[in-house]
Amino acid sequence: MARELTPRAENYSQWYLDLVNKADLAENSAVRGCMVIKPYGYAIWEKMQAQLDKMFKETGHVNAYFPLFIPKSFFSKEADHVEGFAKECAVVTHYRLKNDEANGGLMVDPEAKLEEELIVRPTSETIIWNTYKNWIQSYRDLPILINQWANVVRWEMRTRLFLRTAEFLWQEGHTAHETKEEAIEETEKIINVYGDFVENYMALPVIKGVKSANERFAGALETYSIEALMQDGKALQSGTSHFLGQNFARAFDVTFANREGKLEHVWATSWGVSTRLMGALIMAHSDDNGLVLPPKLAPYQVIIVPIYKSMDQLSAISQKVDEIVAKLKLKGISVKYDSNDNKKPGWKFAEYELKGVPVRIALGARDLDNNQAEVARRDTKEKESYSLDTIVDSVAQLLEDIQLNMFHKALLFRNEHTTKVDTWDEFVNILENKTGFISAHWDGTAETEEKIKEMTKATIRCIPLDSVKEDGVCVLTGKPSTQRVLFARAY
Amino acid sequence: MARELTPRAENYSQWYLDLVNKADLAENSAVRGCMVIKPYGYAIWEKMQAQLDKMFKETGHVNAYFPLFIPKSFFSKEADHVEGFAKECAVVTHYRLKNDEANGGLMVDPEAKLEEELIVRPTSETIIWNTYKNWIQSYRDLPILINQWANVVRWEMRTRLFLRTAEFLWQEGHTAHETKEEAIEETEKIINVYGDFVENYMALPVIKGVKSANERFAGALETYSIEALMQDGKALQSGTSHFLGQNFARAFDVTFANREGKLEHVWATSWGVSTRLMGALIMAHSDDNGLVLPPKLAPYQVIIVPIYKSMDQLSAISQKVDEIVAKLKLKGISVKYDSNDNKKPGWKFAEYELKGVPVRIALGARDLDNNQAEVARRDTKEKESYSLDTIVDSVAQLLEDIQLNMFHKALLFRNEHTTKVDTWDEFVNILENKTGFISAHWDGTAETEEKIKEMTKATIRCIPLDSVKEDGVCVLTGKPSTQRVLFARAY
Repeated sequence: MARELTPRAENYSQWYLDLVNKADLAENSAVRGCMVIKPYGYAIWEKMQAQLDKMFKETGHVNAYFPLFIPKSFFSKEADHVEGFAKECAVVTHYRLKNDEANGGLMVDPEAKLEEELIVRPTSETIIWNTYKNWIQSYRDLPILINQWANVVRWEMRTRLFLRTAEFLWQEGHTAHETKEEAIEETEKIINVYGDFVENYMALPVIKGVKSANERFAGALETYSIEALMQDGKALQSGTSHFLGQNFARAFDVTFANREGKLEHVWATSWGVSTRLMGALIMAHSDDNGLVLPPKLAPYQVIIVPIYKSMDQLSAISQKVDEIVAKLKLKGISVKYDSNDNKKPGWKFAEYELKGVPVRIALGARDLDNNQAEVARRDTKEKESYSLDTIVDSVAQLLEDIQLNMFHKALLFRNEHTTKVDTWDEFVNILENKTGFISAHWDGTAETEEKIKEMTKATIRCIPLDSVKEDGVCVLTGKPSTQRVLFARAY
Repeated sequence: MARELTPRAENYSQWYLDLVNKADLAENSAVRGCMVIKPYGYAIWEKMQAQLDKMFKETGHVNAYFPLFIPKSFFSKEADHVEGFAKECAVVTHYRLKNDEANGGLMVDPEAKLEEELIVRPTSETIIWNTYKNWIQSYRDLPILINQWANVVRWEMRTRLFLRTAEFLWQEGHTAHETKEEAIEETEKIINVYGDFVENYMALPVIKGVKSANERFAGALETYSIEALMQDGKALQSGTSHFLGQNFARAFDVTFANREGKLEHVWATSWGVSTRLMGALIMAHSDDNGLVLPPKLAPYQVIIVPIYKSMDQLSAISQKVDEIVAKLKLKGISVKYDSNDNKKPGWKFAEYELKGVPVRIALGARDLDNNQAEVARRDTKEKESYSLDTIVDSVAQLLEDIQLNMFHKALLFRNEHTTKVDTWDEFVNILENKTGFISAHWDGTAETEEKIKEMTKATIRCIPLDSVKEDGVCVLTGKPSTQRVLFARAY
């Protein structure tokens, strides 16, 4: 059957690609590394966007839009930033094509060379801080709390749909503050918004923490991240929030007159989540039969399938279904009735299972006589008969249960796959055989971090915000350490 | 005063630029031709997007996302399209920068030259039809009704904020159909959706019509447009919907097995509106004091300003205002209370007038004693005292009145500036002295159209859908004609 997926146990990577493809989420395009996000995948992304946008606005942010292109010279202005971002990127060098008289088709017009090359934005700190320069004179102009929904391009060599693509969609917040404290507070506020979103909407527990110096955003003084665990025991960084200090204000000469009338550089943060979240959503919850979507992000929360032999039966069922659909919609539940006569119920069951619709209602002629319907939940695959009298309330409750159950299942998995480790042998053993997060002491040096990465491909995912000080010795070097950090192999 | 605008009568173009700048809508960026859309401008665009998106979904469309980049060779595949689009565009030739050892800074890495150049999309027909090829096998796969919200780039030499920029934001619909009739029906459905939106949300009357062959979209068999009239008597094309026939299906070899089992090329449409609509909105309604926004698209529909001498007075006023705000919000009215103590009421009045907030409520200590407030409407600048007992309902009604009044005012202006003309002298005279739309006979040839354009800068805006057949003679050549068309100078 064309909808069959490679089982996770056989090949997790292939399972993921099969699923993204067969559930109509995305596909590779004719342009290397760039994806086409298909309508069903995009509908999930739209739900994510809408909720995040609401949360940003509730915390005082507004949206704006900055140019796609950034002059090449802007990248040289912040020393760390250029190393991190300006290298693998799409470079616009010309602004015209012309007919290729010799070979047919089109060629780049050599006369139309740009004086300065333009970079397709890999992230927008530089162009935005160059703009903020003109917006900020005094402390009265602060804070600036702006978010942008945009596409960005990073020339990745090895791409994987949603997880790593040359072009991706994201939001990037760029805020400007009067004081260091306020900027740090903003950085932390946002990592909490991200955590709230991923846990309560994506049903995926996260660890909040700060990155080691090695893993920090290029140009940041501190990078906060949320880290989630996938079913194969690998971690996935799901969102980052950066405290940029005064680095970009210095690079672009953005000063303000403070309350004492003295000129000072502005304090900055930036933060983002991207279509990568789609990858996390898919990998964290889905199974060998297809997607499993949390109700809060499912394009359809309920699918209703009629089971009938005659058109008379279909008509009687449809009449009842119309009532149910109207009542579900009144409760704000999104529902689709699939009465397409060209497909058999079995085909539909498999289709909506693949698509991860949280609740399926099957209503047959005999059910109608018995005033009941068969309700199946996607997460546990349990089926139950519901009375038609109370089905609307029951389904509303079921959707809440599914949302919570998915979170708890993922939490249980993560707890089972988080291991405290105190020796190197154990470290390697856990990483190879059990996988997941490893909580271990580290001597705090970049050298040790690099060495561990080289030896095991495990990286420090974060220093958890809730970690307690504890004396110990580094799991690799035996040097003294004051707290545990979280290691894992990661996407 | 820094907020003062150049009067329209003095210099309409400068008035527009002053307004866009001073009302914080947009500004030029460091990248030639690319704009920064500032938060207040973006908030209006978001309202437009939300409403259009709803209307597209209500008519059966879904969103998706296709790559920013298009391989150069794709543009050569549709002969007309390449002439129209592939020339003035941003061309990506390289994918890496490196440190410039000789001169400092960064340089393009000559080793990282792309085998085939990529074009930053000026419109997405080619990449989308190349994708549809794999999605369509049979009539059962049709129709495809997809819309995309995206940024596009056209290398314009003369740019003006919102009206003509190198990068702009838009939506582009791309649909695929089984039959010619269905595709034409779709094209017309969308021009009606656009007309509905512009008239009922932007409060701007439009003429729906089809373009002359000269003005058609590159690759279309028929282009429908909506044309609106600005206050300077120039027309602004506000949206287009194209019937593409089988041109792109042929260019990208997209066939389907029809109901008889025979292979046939797919029928196509495409349609779009862009941030250009912001320009139309601004130019159609605003005055020498600032923006005038229709209530349905205003980021804030109501602004409330307290008038007080003491903090006690402010506190009493604020208490009453909080009640009013809560009630307005319950009615779905967006409202802002500006109790900022650092600015005087006069400053606030001017500020919100500049920003085009439809209704201003001023509440003073004496008003409070009299159980009333002063309500000013932005469109007519009339002020009236409203009883606080009924102010919420009155304001709700007032917002509806303003929306309708703005439409009728614009309609009156357009009717007054639409002139039937039968001689060339009159044509030139009206165009120079009265401006606006000219309804005149035309002999139907591209040559005459070109000649009129050269002589007067007027173009055929459209052949109105509701025009009646009428025998006459061409206003320039005297050759026979069967219907009037609409001429105007245009943005």
